[in-house]
Amino acid sequence: MELNLIYQSIEEDLSKVKGQLISISDIDFSWLSQQLHYVVKSIGKGMRPALTLMAGKFYQYDLTYLLPMAVSVELMHTATLVHDDAIDQAQVRRGQPTINRLWGEDIAILMGDYLFARAGEFVADTQNPRVIKLFSNTLGVISSGEINQFLGAFNMEQPRENYFRRIASKTASLFALSTESGAILSNAPEKSVDVLRNYGYNLGIAFQIVDDILDFTSNEKTLGKPVGSDLSQGTLTLPAMLLMEQYPEDNPVKKIFESRDSGDKKSIESAIEMVRNSTIVDKCYQVASEYCDKACEDLHLLPDNPTRQRLAELADYVIKRSD
Amino acid sequence: MELNLIYQSIEEDLSKVKGQLISISDIDFSWLSQQLHYVVKSIGKGMRPALTLMAGKFYQYDLTYLLPMAVSVELMHTATLVHDDAIDQAQVRRGQPTINRLWGEDIAILMGDYLFARAGEFVADTQNPRVIKLFSNTLGVISSGEINQFLGAFNMEQPRENYFRRIASKTASLFALSTESGAILSNAPEKSVDVLRNYGYNLGIAFQIVDDILDFTSNEKTLGKPVGSDLSQGTLTLPAMLLMEQYPEDNPVKKIFESRDSGDKKSIESAIEMVRNSTIVDKCYQVASEYCDKACEDLHLLPDNPTRQRLAELADYVIKRSD
Repeated sequence: MELNLIYQSIEEDLSKVKGQLISISDIDFSWLSQQLHYVVKSIGKGMRPALTLMAGKFYQYDLTYLLPMAVSVELMHTATLVHDDAIDQAQVRRGQPTINRLWGEDIAILMGDYLFARAGEFVADTQNPRVIKLFSNTLGVISSGEINQFLGAFNMEQPRENYFRRIASKTASLFALSTESGAILSNAPEKSVDVLRNYGYNLGIAFQIVDDILDFTSNEKTLGKPVGSDLSQGTLTLPAMLLMEQYPEDNPVKKIFESRDSGDKKSIESAIEMVRNSTIVDKCYQVASEYCDKACEDLHLLPDNPTRQRLAELADYVIKRSD
Repeated sequence: MELNLIYQSIEEDLSKVKGQLISISDIDFSWLSQQLHYVVKSIGKGMRPALTLMAGKFYQYDLTYLLPMAVSVELMHTATLVHDDAIDQAQVRRGQPTINRLWGEDIAILMGDYLFARAGEFVADTQNPRVIKLFSNTLGVISSGEINQFLGAFNMEQPRENYFRRIASKTASLFALSTESGAILSNAPEKSVDVLRNYGYNLGIAFQIVDDILDFTSNEKTLGKPVGSDLSQGTLTLPAMLLMEQYPEDNPVKKIFESRDSGDKKSIESAIEMVRNSTIVDKCYQVASEYCDKACEDLHLLPDNPTRQRLAELADYVIKRSD
């Protein structure tokens, strides 16, 4: 199913989110405005704000609170991307040159901080201390997860739990915040808050697994960034782990990680080929599917409305998407 | 007057702030714990949390809210220092090697983000949406101010307002947040909130001017970082501006800025000598004093209690301090 059909009931409000993001760049420093506009205009799929809005559809859907929350989760996401790209020295994101490439790592640090601040202002507009606390907790989880990932780079001796812990921190936590905050801000009963947090969390895990698969199976044009980025940054993802398990001896992943050579294009291409021509892709999709099933298993406990079906379809989309 | 005498009425609570900061490093990543402990153990003068606590002394002094707020302002301060040091490639801070020197710029970015997150969690514990919003606003002001400073580095053609705008963003805004939040959280009437915000803001300007003077007149041992750091980073401060005005032609500041040569030690030493052997230091102290007077001018509108006198003494301390 197409994303715009899944988003149908919230599409108008999601465009308000985008409008707010664009208006953030209308501030009184002209140079900053230019840079900010550049960052926020490429909102991507807007999955996180969409989740907040959709999660808000089951009880009192009030944009007064849901809109700033949706803006806030997208801003937090963007801020973390800006910092991640600076750290990874990534050159392209969403098909555009990164902030660090255009203006340097220092501006990227400060720009990320500024976006965190703006995210904090929007979440404060929810006037809901519980949600505000969740927001800060999530930022803590994401940044400690990133530290973990950074320190674990080029380490081959990681058990599979490490991988799941890492993607839980860096992706699932923000998906869970997106849905949980939408539930809380629409005055959902606690049981429904649990269902929606559980949905967001497991969807986030599935989403990241698929991201990690696409890093092997997709192409630069579709992804908006080079394939094999994870390997070149020494990030051990599920497909790479399975490849190491299947070929414990002579293995291009091992070669890249042992030499810590980010520029070893030959080994990266060879690892990509091996993953594509194996059952690894299917196995990874299987794992992602299981998380999608887990995401949806309690949706029937929510009030029956069209959005409930859309959430199930979104889980399906997450698996089938190509970018 | 000694700082510990000025802090007397809040000293016990300030040590609770320090205790909370230390306990932040007791988290379940041992490596992160080590690094965090390293950051938070050197709290410095603790002026910002002290201001929050002192500003809370005029109405309902309730540690339930004031303590997390005080922890939060210090954490925000520490987070900005960690990022600033990474950007400036500073090697020493508070007499200790910086995070970026010990663990690299990337860890410094992530560590700063983590500290912002923890600051956000503490401010959420105040349960006060107004204060939470102020907190985020302030972070936005600080980070856009830092972007401003960064982009204006090595630019000699700055009017004096630029300097005051810069130090208002980077220092006075957080001092103002510290006092204003203390006032709000102790249920001060609006008039008193204004008085205390005004106090914090102008004290912050004075504090930064003195910092900028000490960068010329002090020594590395007392400062905990090299003298002349501002010049070597291309930051035009009040003493350097006055030096340029007095010697518009042949001037070591001009030489450093035109060549953008951070390592031009001879010119830096020569600028330091020229400032020390001129009336510039006195003139700068005069300006700082005026801001301290402005900080204190409305203190008489606050309820008469011992802390009111301590605030006046603190303004005096800010001028006379040597580190």
